[in-house]
Amino acid sequence: MSNLPVTERTRVRRHPERGSQELALIYQILDEAYLCHVAFVHEGQPVVLPMAYARVEDRIYLHGSSKNHMLNALADGVPVCVEVTLLDGLVFARSQFSHSMNYRSVVAFGSAERVSEPEPKRAALSALCDRLAPGRSREARAPTPQELTATLVLAVPIHEASAKRRSGPPLDKQDDLAWPCWAGVLPFEQRLGVPEHDPRLAAGTGLSGAIEQLARSSSR
Amino acid sequence: MSNLPVTERTRVRRHPERGSQELALIYQILDEAYLCHVAFVHEGQPVVLPMAYARVEDRIYLHGSSKNHMLNALADGVPVCVEVTLLDGLVFARSQFSHSMNYRSVVAFGSAERVSEPEPKRAALSALCDRLAPGRSREARAPTPQELTATLVLAVPIHEASAKRRSGPPLDKQDDLAWPCWAGVLPFEQRLGVPEHDPRLAAGTGLSGAIEQLARSSSR
Repeated sequence: MSNLPVTERTRVRRHPERGSQELALIYQILDEAYLCHVAFVHEGQPVVLPMAYARVEDRIYLHGSSKNHMLNALADGVPVCVEVTLLDGLVFARSQFSHSMNYRSVVAFGSAERVSEPEPKRAALSALCDRLAPGRSREARAPTPQELTATLVLAVPIHEASAKRRSGPPLDKQDDLAWPCWAGVLPFEQRLGVPEHDPRLAAGTGLSGAIEQLARSSSR
Repeated sequence: MSNLPVTERTRVRRHPERGSQELALIYQILDEAYLCHVAFVHEGQPVVLPMAYARVEDRIYLHGSSKNHMLNALADGVPVCVEVTLLDGLVFARSQFSHSMNYRSVVAFGSAERVSEPEPKRAALSALCDRLAPGRSREARAPTPQELTATLVLAVPIHEASAKRRSGPPLDKQDDLAWPCWAGVLPFEQRLGVPEHDPRLAAGTGLSGAIEQLARSSSR
């Protein structure tokens, strides 16, 4: 896969060695996280909200209620910034100054487009459902025409974006290495726990395939 | 603890029953997460960046390099929005439409103030270090005057903020309860893993107290 162009907005200024426009890396980060943080300007005020999302090819799909004022404002094509960050570890150095975090993040700039046609809209909603558990959209009941109307779907193209990441041990200066305290990384682990049955689940209903597979792959 | 006032910006419009201006809840969420998402307007464009932070009383402290253009712009007091979200679980419903996530989030509006005086600046940096592991700032080497100068510290007051959270099982409509698939919640668990020693650690250096305590409390 190729690289995105470096633009004035996506050039990584602080620690440029940690920045990347590599699409494969950008997609990998986007496909691992569950939440993105969507920023836009509303009446002169910056606003950032957490949202579920799904990446399909070079687009990030968002969705919400058709009555959501903010989403409707986004659908009008105002500039938007979408950010995703995975926290990988806490970095403990000898000096307070060199404490850090290991992470992988993506920042994308662009504007959202409304997905209105029924078929692409259904496909985007299936992708959003499958993002929670691959294959889940085929187990669950598909949206009714009323539900489709009640849902706003937006697509943000991934055309101007960069990744940034830090990994590895603390970077204390040579002079600090003799400082008498432990230094290293506490890795940050995220996983799915034991499935909790809906209290209204019919007696004897076992995990469906998509959930069982997700729960198994996550507890590795 | 009291409630913050509800303002036009912090009134929760979608699912108002999930919103809260309760300070105790807002602080609890801020004290549990490690990363916040800071949005601001830069040359007309919304930008959102992930940052480490620490809450002390009614302020969110941020820090970075004194050479960071964006942080310097923030220090000039432009409007800012700070968002923190904890993902608690993936919610699987019978209908695609009712799939959801359990989460706790905070959105705060305001503007940042530069923390310039050496003593409050040292205190804020200690809080940022202790946020990674309580007590760590006393184990690590304190900042030199040069390091203090090289670091920009900002404070965002928590005066206009709201929390929002969803918990519990999926909310399928009665008509969907007979749909033949599993429904429930996959809890999302985050914890710290086994400490990884810095390769440059002097032989025989054990975990320091702050790290040992954090690693123990996290593996519960």
